Amino acid sequence: MAKGITRRSEDYARWYTDVVAAADLADYSPVKGCMVIKPHGYALWEQIKAVLDRMFKETGHVNAYFPLFIPKSFLCREAEHVAGFAKECAVVTHSRLKANDDPNSSEKVIVDEASKLEEELVVRPTSETIIWSMYKKWIQSYRDLPILINQWANVVRWEMRTRLFLRTTEFLWQEGHTAHATPDDAESEVLKMLGVYQTFAEEFMAIPVYAGIKTESEKFAGAERTYCIEAMMQDKKALQAGTSHNLGQNFARAFDVTYQSEAGKQEYVWATSWGVSTRLVGALVMAHSDDTGLVLPPKLAPIQVVVVPIWKNDEEHAKVMETVTGLVQSWDKDIRFKIDDRDYYRPGWKFNEWEKKGVCIRIEIGPRDVENGEVVLACRDDGSKSKIQNNQLNDRLRNELNDMQSRLFERARKFRDEHTFEVDSYEDFKRRIEAPEGFFNIHWCGDSKCEAKIQEETKATIRCIPLNKKHESGECIICKQPSSARVITGKAY
Amino acid sequence: MAKGITRRSEDYARWYTDVVAAADLADYSPVKGCMVIKPHGYALWEQIKAVLDRMFKETGHVNAYFPLFIPKSFLCREAEHVAGFAKECAVVTHSRLKANDDPNSSEKVIVDEASKLEEELVVRPTSETIIWSMYKKWIQSYRDLPILINQWANVVRWEMRTRLFLRTTEFLWQEGHTAHATPDDAESEVLKMLGVYQTFAEEFMAIPVYAGIKTESEKFAGAERTYCIEAMMQDKKALQAGTSHNLGQNFARAFDVTYQSEAGKQEYVWATSWGVSTRLVGALVMAHSDDTGLVLPPKLAPIQVVVVPIWKNDEEHAKVMETVTGLVQSWDKDIRFKIDDRDYYRPGWKFNEWEKKGVCIRIEIGPRDVENGEVVLACRDDGSKSKIQNNQLNDRLRNELNDMQSRLFERARKFRDEHTFEVDSYEDFKRRIEAPEGFFNIHWCGDSKCEAKIQEETKATIRCIPLNKKHESGECIICKQPSSARVITGKAY
Repeated sequence: MAKGITRRSEDYARWYTDVVAAADLADYSPVKGCMVIKPHGYALWEQIKAVLDRMFKETGHVNAYFPLFIPKSFLCREAEHVAGFAKECAVVTHSRLKANDDPNSSEKVIVDEASKLEEELVVRPTSETIIWSMYKKWIQSYRDLPILINQWANVVRWEMRTRLFLRTTEFLWQEGHTAHATPDDAESEVLKMLGVYQTFAEEFMAIPVYAGIKTESEKFAGAERTYCIEAMMQDKKALQAGTSHNLGQNFARAFDVTYQSEAGKQEYVWATSWGVSTRLVGALVMAHSDDTGLVLPPKLAPIQVVVVPIWKNDEEHAKVMETVTGLVQSWDKDIRFKIDDRDYYRPGWKFNEWEKKGVCIRIEIGPRDVENGEVVLACRDDGSKSKIQNNQLNDRLRNELNDMQSRLFERARKFRDEHTFEVDSYEDFKRRIEAPEGFFNIHWCGDSKCEAKIQEETKATIRCIPLNKKHESGECIICKQPSSARVITGKAY
Repeated sequence: MAKGITRRSEDYARWYTDVVAAADLADYSPVKGCMVIKPHGYALWEQIKAVLDRMFKETGHVNAYFPLFIPKSFLCREAEHVAGFAKECAVVTHSRLKANDDPNSSEKVIVDEASKLEEELVVRPTSETIIWSMYKKWIQSYRDLPILINQWANVVRWEMRTRLFLRTTEFLWQEGHTAHATPDDAESEVLKMLGVYQTFAEEFMAIPVYAGIKTESEKFAGAERTYCIEAMMQDKKALQAGTSHNLGQNFARAFDVTYQSEAGKQEYVWATSWGVSTRLVGALVMAHSDDTGLVLPPKLAPIQVVVVPIWKNDEEHAKVMETVTGLVQSWDKDIRFKIDDRDYYRPGWKFNEWEKKGVCIRIEIGPRDVENGEVVLACRDDGSKSKIQNNQLNDRLRNELNDMQSRLFERARKFRDEHTFEVDSYEDFKRRIEAPEGFFNIHWCGDSKCEAKIQEETKATIRCIPLNKKHESGECIICKQPSSARVITGKAY
């Protein structure tokens, strides 16, 4: 256990906050519910962005940017949509401040009432409405379709109870918004992007996920169907790590967006939207880290290797640094490394610092090592240490980084699989979901009343109806009506 | 002249708007003053971002992210700062919408007065105040300095008269915010980043700039000194293309940010900030484009080469595309190209389309060319066309892109130098600045009254006091008091 980090077993929520702080990922801001993403946390987000952005472009998408503000009337065009977001909207009502004439007031500057807007503007909680108001201008014919646009942006959803990365009033995300000529095209897009998210979660974040479909009551406000990927954190709670929505023709109807088909008919356009956010940073922290601090999968770690030279005097420093400089130049160019030769910290302090920050591999090298032509290599995830000859180091780094990526994924998968259960008795379910012991696959009739009862009585939710569900006859755990397959339930972030 | 594009000579402002529209860079949004950056415009911004981000990192900076919202009281801590921004602030006053109970109202959803915030939040017009409130937490000792942070973000300044890219209520930018132990360190940083901006403008944007210092009346609200780079557009007006501010200890005092020096004394921290915005896209459009549409410097063009295959039937299409596929595979991997084999547009239409969009080089290839092992290569900037053997094409592309980059810069430099004049008679100045004929280097005494008179009477401003000014005795063009060097004046965007 590292100083300043609560043990997971003691208090998981505090452990999470401690790891975020110890790794210097983020800080609380003076603005209620808003966080500051510190350089190390932002570097992690940049890694996530870079990979996803490449994957989006490889699947034919382009980036664009739409306004931060949405006229209130636009948000109201789609009834379910506004109902879903009305209670968490930051509303801009004025456009100027002015000096306060009142000598008795302590406020030197006040809102200028003369600048009251004719129509209030909502800071985007999501951009379907502003984007579909533009798509109306851009879409006339089937030749204008599909539109495959993504946006990297900040959004605001007023939150009362916030947690760094997991739930904040402002967060960063990407939102894809696509327009299609047919419902099949839209559905293909929705599933394709769900697949991109699953690949990203499993191959880059090293987090296994269940892909599935949300129940009616859990779907996005304004969607026909919401698909999601669900991951298990180390406290056996679920974290929704990405969603992909089939919006049907809801937004096209709300904004009157039609196109002329090849056959010459006017048809409403079919829509999708999909997104992931800085919440993924929280998922990375919670999936892999330990009581010493952050653990990151090598493919996303901003620093994969830290080199800590060890010396006692200037002569030794020069000698060690000469070897270090030669070594790092011989490595593959895509290895992200840092040399920490700060002279006002001791090696032990540095080891601890980089462990807390989740650097995958530490290389220690002192004067004796230089003479022997070797270094000490320490792995962050399993704590293993070994001596490596300098001429084998590049290959060894490459292998260790690959192996660590696999190890983290396998460990997370084993953990999840060992904590995913089938249960048929509601009494058992209630008892075992309390802590929780894990995910529970239960039979459910499909009625939202039974779903609501589960949530009220246990605080657990149906995370998704898995896409690869196997057909199996059973009885709803609540009402005993027939069910043809199990759904995944869990307590969630 | 292209269809739909007004000639520069006829109406420069309309020409600009037409080129932006014809190149599909941006669109007006339904939100007053806010634009939509369309995919081609955003791709250009991505190129700009990628280069600048690399340059910032190479000079030791890291990225982070601070909240969108600034408590009103924070903005007010620095008196000049709030005075500078008060009149253009989007103010958030409420956090919820609700259904309207009033059956007589046409508004279905209204602001929930119960959600009125205790303290209003301003959507950041710039982030000095929120960032320095955090630096107070982060800085204790000289070991915490310097802090070299940059942020890529959206900001909002309420604008009455807006123009796509050049002046919009919301815009995208980067803002560097650094903290230093000494005034010398801060001043070095300010000049270093001004140098980065100048290098970027000249070597990547192919736009020559004058680097200088702003007068007291033109400096940033809250700065001690503002440095800037100023470019000349084709209508001979100035565009401020980047600013770098020495903030002295103003924000450290406002937020009480002190550090313990090596000598053990508590000292206020020294600050800088520096930024460029999506306005640079407007500068690129105005500096290089012509009556046919957009012209872009190759180093920043999202598409450097477009290949337009020409065919009459499926057989020819297959044959031409086979050659095209082989050709593009043989090119250097960093050449950004697109193959346009859409079958519902004719080649001539495509040529025009890609000219409007500023693609640097067009490759035309038909069945006859395939037989001859050659292609037609057309350059966007000078309209030159030539036949190139396939085996020489890669080298030729590389050379043409390099040459075009130089040609654009030299053309812009020649234009600027030919339209920069020294003038000593105020009557001459007034007459020649009217159109304007260019930049005018004038003697100025340094008094803000003379500066104000120039601005009132001519609408021109002192763009900067050039850094490389040569000492030359003269008389202020207004008051005839002595002056030791000339300043650069012009009409500006």
